[in-house]
Amino acid sequence: MHEFELIKKFFLKLSNFNKNALDLNDDIFFDKSKKLAISVDTYIEGTHFINFDYPDLVIKKILRSSISDLICKGVIPKYYFISGSGDKKSFSAKNLKKISKSLSQEQKKYSIYLSGGDTTYSKKLSFTITVIGYSNKIIYRNNAKLNDDIYITGNLGDSFIGLMILKKKINLNNKLSNYFKKSFFSPKLHINFTKKLLSFANTSIDISDGLIADLEKLINKQKVSYKIYLNDVPVSKNLKKLISSKKISKKSCISQGDDYQILFTAPKSKSGIIHKTCNSLGVKISKIGKICSPSQKSQIINEKNIKITLKNKGYFHRF
Amino acid sequence: MHEFELIKKFFLKLSNFNKNALDLNDDIFFDKSKKLAISVDTYIEGTHFINFDYPDLVIKKILRSSISDLICKGVIPKYYFISGSGDKKSFSAKNLKKISKSLSQEQKKYSIYLSGGDTTYSKKLSFTITVIGYSNKIIYRNNAKLNDDIYITGNLGDSFIGLMILKKKINLNNKLSNYFKKSFFSPKLHINFTKKLLSFANTSIDISDGLIADLEKLINKQKVSYKIYLNDVPVSKNLKKLISSKKISKKSCISQGDDYQILFTAPKSKSGIIHKTCNSLGVKISKIGKICSPSQKSQIINEKNIKITLKNKGYFHRF
Repeated sequence: MHEFELIKKFFLKLSNFNKNALDLNDDIFFDKSKKLAISVDTYIEGTHFINFDYPDLVIKKILRSSISDLICKGVIPKYYFISGSGDKKSFSAKNLKKISKSLSQEQKKYSIYLSGGDTTYSKKLSFTITVIGYSNKIIYRNNAKLNDDIYITGNLGDSFIGLMILKKKINLNNKLSNYFKKSFFSPKLHINFTKKLLSFANTSIDISDGLIADLEKLINKQKVSYKIYLNDVPVSKNLKKLISSKKISKKSCISQGDDYQILFTAPKSKSGIIHKTCNSLGVKISKIGKICSPSQKSQIINEKNIKITLKNKGYFHRF
Repeated sequence: MHEFELIKKFFLKLSNFNKNALDLNDDIFFDKSKKLAISVDTYIEGTHFINFDYPDLVIKKILRSSISDLICKGVIPKYYFISGSGDKKSFSAKNLKKISKSLSQEQKKYSIYLSGGDTTYSKKLSFTITVIGYSNKIIYRNNAKLNDDIYITGNLGDSFIGLMILKKKINLNNKLSNYFKKSFFSPKLHINFTKKLLSFANTSIDISDGLIADLEKLINKQKVSYKIYLNDVPVSKNLKKLISSKKISKKSCISQGDDYQILFTAPKSKSGIIHKTCNSLGVKISKIGKICSPSQKSQIINEKNIKITLKNKGYFHRF
C-alpha cells in the first residue's frame, strides 16, 4: 500500500478538525494563527541512508533533508530536535563526537539551534528530526495555476550518480567520483532563496523522492496536467560528461530523488523577476515545463520532441 | 554512559545560544517569546513497550506518555505528530485500523489533533511522537525552594504490578489482574489539573522513569537534598492488599516508573489551596516529603523512621 493511500485510509479523519495539518497532504504543518511551521521526518539505516560508516556525513544529510522541507515552502528554519535510536556501536564516543561536530557545522551554516530530542537504545539505527520555523505565510501544495511555468533550482541527478558510485555500480576516476559522492552526501540548500520564493511561487516542493514523483505529489489534488521538457532539465557539467560518453542516459538519472532542489510553479508574468532574483543570489534556475489543462495527459518530451515515459518516476514509500 | 552524561558531553554546547532548549535538561522545549512548548519522544518495541500484540493499547499509552510531558509542566497539549517505523505485519490494515481508532479516542479525550508525521519501513518497530502546546509560562525543572513540600498526584506502583503480570512474574485473580494491567496500559492523566499547577508549583516533572529517579532529575542542578517518607507515598487499595499479603514490598514497587503522575514541589503556604483545588477536581494529592538543605544527604524514611535505600531508583537510559 502506498504511504498516501495508507494515510488517507486510516489517518486523514483524525486531522479533520485541524486545517493546519494541510489534510496531511503536505510535507509540513502550518499553524497560520501562530505563524508556526513544523516538519517531522524519520530516517532509517538501510532505507534512508545506506549505513553509518560516515556518521558525520549521514547526520549532515538527514538534517539538510529536514531543513529542505521548510525551505522549499518559504520558511526559514529556526530550531531542530533530533531523536536518535541506536546501539552502543552507532553511538560510540567516537561517533558521537563526529555527530556533534557535524551538527555544530550545520548550525552555523543554517543559523539553527539544537533544542532537544532524546537518545534511546535500539538494535536498529534511526533518527527522527523535527524542524521548526516561524513565517507569516507558506507556499502550499496543490496551488498550481493553468499555464504556470515549472521551475527547478540547481541541477538534478548528481546525487543519484554519487549513490551509484557508493554502491559500486558505476566506476569513475577519483576527481569525478568525489564530486558525485559529495553531491550525494552534502546537498546544497538555497536558504537565501527561501523568502524570495514566497513572492512569486504559486506552489512548491523539494525534490527528495524524484522529479516526477514529487511533481505528481505537488499537484495530486488538482485537475491539471504537466508537460516537462527533458532537454531543459538541468544537469551539471560533470553529469553532462557522463551522458555524452553514454555511461548513463539523462532520462535514467534525473528523477531518482535525493536532489533537494526546489521545484515550483509561477505565472509567466513573474519570469523576469525570477531570473533577476536568481542571478543576483547566484542560484541556478531552469524553466523545465508548464502546467497544462487536465484535458491532455501529463507528458515528458525528449530532445527529439517525442513523448517518453520514465521507468522510475522516483521513490514512493511502500508497506 | 548515562543519557544525561552523553547529552552533556556532546550536545549541550549545540544549544548554547538557545535558552529555549532549557539546557537540554528538561523534558520539553519552551520558546517563551512565541509561547510554544514542544515535547519529542521516541518509543521502541522491546524497550518502551513489550511488543505490539495490542496495538490499540500501546498507541494510547505512548501518546499519553508524550502528552504527560507537557501536562506536568502546566501546558495543555494542542497538536501531535506521530512518526511510525515498522514492517508490514506491524502496519497491517487490521493494526492500522486499531491504531486509528485508538488515536481517535485519545483525540476526543484530550482535545488534541493529529497534525502530521510519517510512516517508514523498518524491521524494528518504533514511534516518535511530537506534542505541541501553547502557554504563557511553564513550570521549569530545578526551581525547588528550600523547605518546599514535595507532592505527588494519584497512586504509584500500579503500573509496575501490571507489567509484572504481563511478564508472568506475578499471578493474581482476574479482577485484580485486569485492574493492574489497565493501570499499565492506560495511565490516567490529570489534564484538568494542568493550568492550576502553574499557580502553585515551583518545579515539576512527570513520573515516567520512577519516583526517585525523576525526583533526582527534577533537582539535578540544584544544591538541595530531599527527604521522602515511604509511608506517605500513595498506593491504591488494590496495591495495599498485595503489600499486606506480603506478595510485594512497598519499597520495591513505588519507584519503578511508568506512573505518569505529577511530582511537584510547592511552598508550605500553598498547602491549603493545593488540597482545596485537588478536592474540587477530584485529583488525589499526597504530600510525600520535603526539600532540604544540601548539608544533609537525601533520605528515604520508612514506616519505622529508619533511613532506607532503594535497590532500584528507576529507569535511566544507558548506552
